[in-house]
Amino acid sequence: MKNKRQFKTSACLYLLLGAMTVLLLVAAGVATADSLLLKEQGSFFVGGRTVFTDALTGSTTGFLGTGINTGNITVDQMYVQYQIPEGADSHVPVVMVHGCCLSSKSYETTPDGRMGWNEYFLRKHRAVYLPDQVSRARSGFDATILNEIKLGKRPASDMPEIRTATHEIAWLLFRFGPSMGKAFSDEQFPVEAFEEFGKQVIPDLNGGLPAVNPTWTNLSGLAIRLKGAILMGHSESGFFPEQTALINPVDIKALITIETVCPSLSAEQISNLAKIPTLVVFGDHLGDVPSMPTMWKERFDSCGKFVQQVNAAGGDATMMHLPKYGQFGNSHMLMQDKNSNQVADLILKWIDEHVESKHK
Amino acid sequence: MKNKRQFKTSACLYLLLGAMTVLLLVAAGVATADSLLLKEQGSFFVGGRTVFTDALTGSTTGFLGTGINTGNITVDQMYVQYQIPEGADSHVPVVMVHGCCLSSKSYETTPDGRMGWNEYFLRKHRAVYLPDQVSRARSGFDATILNEIKLGKRPASDMPEIRTATHEIAWLLFRFGPSMGKAFSDEQFPVEAFEEFGKQVIPDLNGGLPAVNPTWTNLSGLAIRLKGAILMGHSESGFFPEQTALINPVDIKALITIETVCPSLSAEQISNLAKIPTLVVFGDHLGDVPSMPTMWKERFDSCGKFVQQVNAAGGDATMMHLPKYGQFGNSHMLMQDKNSNQVADLILKWIDEHVESKHK
Repeated sequence: MKNKRQFKTSACLYLLLGAMTVLLLVAAGVATADSLLLKEQGSFFVGGRTVFTDALTGSTTGFLGTGINTGNITVDQMYVQYQIPEGADSHVPVVMVHGCCLSSKSYETTPDGRMGWNEYFLRKHRAVYLPDQVSRARSGFDATILNEIKLGKRPASDMPEIRTATHEIAWLLFRFGPSMGKAFSDEQFPVEAFEEFGKQVIPDLNGGLPAVNPTWTNLSGLAIRLKGAILMGHSESGFFPEQTALINPVDIKALITIETVCPSLSAEQISNLAKIPTLVVFGDHLGDVPSMPTMWKERFDSCGKFVQQVNAAGGDATMMHLPKYGQFGNSHMLMQDKNSNQVADLILKWIDEHVESKHK
Repeated sequence: MKNKRQFKTSACLYLLLGAMTVLLLVAAGVATADSLLLKEQGSFFVGGRTVFTDALTGSTTGFLGTGINTGNITVDQMYVQYQIPEGADSHVPVVMVHGCCLSSKSYETTPDGRMGWNEYFLRKHRAVYLPDQVSRARSGFDATILNEIKLGKRPASDMPEIRTATHEIAWLLFRFGPSMGKAFSDEQFPVEAFEEFGKQVIPDLNGGLPAVNPTWTNLSGLAIRLKGAILMGHSESGFFPEQTALINPVDIKALITIETVCPSLSAEQISNLAKIPTLVVFGDHLGDVPSMPTMWKERFDSCGKFVQQVNAAGGDATMMHLPKYGQFGNSHMLMQDKNSNQVADLILKWIDEHVESKHK
C-alpha cells in the first residue's frame, strides 16, 4: 500500500512528465510543420580544369579595355548546391540533376509556388545535392569559341549548338496537353503557372561538350566525395546516373532515371549496372500528344528493355510507370506536377525498400 | 511557517523548473550553433517577357532535329533564390547582387569552405534574397543573336560582348596581392583556395543588354514584391541599388554599394537618392597593385564624391573604408575574405543604426 510520501512523489513525477511532454511538443513544433531545420547547407564545385584561352573576350581591346585577351580560365567545373537536414545520417544523400534547357531550379519551388522535390526530400530527412550541369547556369561555360568567332579566328559554323525550347515545344514535348494552350483533362502540370515555367528555360550548350560529358565524371566525383549517393537524372540527364556508373560505379548507391531515352548497352555494361539498384520513372499520356504520337512510347519502350536486361543480368531494376502506381495525368515535368509530393513518396518508398533496407 | 505539504509542493515546483530549463536548453540546442532554422525557402523569377525568336537554335534542322526553329521564348527574367529564418519579421530583407563574371555563388560558401554572407545574415535573422543577374547563370540569356550568326543571318561582329576574367586578371584586379600568385602579407582573401575561386568565374553577357539593364527594373520589382528591401550590389552591380532607386525608389529601404565606380549624377538624381540611407564599402590595398596603381583609388574617390553629394543634399550616406573601421587586408571579394563575418557585422551594425532603428 502506498504511503503519503510515495503518493506525493508519484504526483510530482506525473507533473514532471506532463511538463516535459508539453515542452517537447513545443520544441518539436519549432522544427516541424512550416519550419525547416538544417544541419548544414552551402555550395561547392566538383571537377574543373585550367585551360589557356586565346580569346577571353571578342573585343580587340580585351577585357574591359585592358588589352588583356589571353590567359588561364577554368572550364568543365560543376556547381553543386546542397542542404543537409537533421536526421540525414540514417539516409543516403540524393543528387538531383536537371534536364535540357533547364537548371537545378527544376527541383526548387514549383512554377505555382509549391515546395519542390529538394525541400520535400529534406523534410524526409534526406541530404539533397543540386548540381547545375557543366556548361549551364552557375557552372558557367567556355566562351572561347564564341569569342574566336567574333574575332574572326574561326568561321561562324564552328559555333556550338545552343538549344532553347520555345513555349510551344515545352507545352507539347513536356505533355502539358494535346495542343498549345490546351491541357489534358487530368493534367497534373500546373498549367495556370505556365508563364512562370517559361522563365526556367535557359540556353543549353551541351552540344559543345566532349563525347564523355564532364558532368558524368563530376557526378562520379560527387558520389565519391559524399561517400555514397543516389544519382537521379531527368530527361536530357535521365541516363546520366548510368553513364556515370559506367565510368566509375564507386559510391553510387542507386540510379534513378526519369523520362528519357535508354540507349542500347553491351552485355558487359548491363552486367556492371546490374550491381546497382535502378529505378526508371515515366508519367502519363505517353502517346496522347497528336503531333508526337510515338516519341514518348519509344522512349518508354527503350527503358523497358533496359530494365528487363538489368533484371535478366541479376540486377534489381524497377519500371515505375506512374499510372500503374495510381498516379494519373503526370507530365514530363513530374517533379513540378500538382501531385509531385505523391510521386516523390513513391520514389522514397522505392529507396527505402530497394536501397536503404539492404544496407541496414 | 511552511507545513510539510507546502514544502513538498515547492520542491516539486523547483524540480519542474529545473526540468523545464534543461529541456529548453535542449530545444534551443536543436536550433542554434550548428543548425539553421528556416521559416521558408525557395526560388522564383522577377520580370521576364515573351519574345519571338527566329533562331531558336543555330541548326538548319531546328530544335533536336524537329525542324522547329522559331517560336516564343522568355528573356530578361531574373532568378531569385531566398531563405527566411526564424525571427526575420523584425528586420528588413537583404538582396545581395553579385558582380562581373560571377553568380550568386559569390555570397554562398567561401572558396575555403566557410559560411558565406547569405548564411551569416540568415543567422542574424535577416531574410536573404540572392538574384542571378539577368543574362547570367540560372537567369539564362537570349541566345538568338548567337544562333542567327551561326545560321548566317548576321555577321560575326554582331556577337555581344562576352566577358570572363582570367585567373591572372582576378588575382590583380581583385587585389589578392601585388603580382600573380603572390599575396599581400596581411591579405584576407583565402588565397590557398584560389583554384576553387576560379571555378566561380563564368561568362558575363551584360554587354549585350539594353541601356536600361533589366536587372535594375527587376530589382525594383523584387523590392516591391518584398514590401521593403535593402539592395546590396558588388563591383559590376555595385551601383545597381542606386540605378534601381533612380528608376523607382518604392520599397527600397537602403542602398549598399560595395567596391565599384560611382558615376556622376545630376542634382535631381542626388536629391532623389538622398531620401534613402546609403552605405559604400571599400576594402584595403586600393593603391598597392603596381600594375593598377590608380584604378581603385579613382573608384574610391568617385564614391567618396557621391557620398559627399548625398550628404550635402540632406541624405544619410556613409563611406565605410574598412581600414578606418579596423579591418585590414581586405580584397575586392570582401564577402569571401577570412574576416568576412567581421565585415558583415559592420554592415549589420550600419543597417541597425541607419535603417532599422529609424523605423522602430
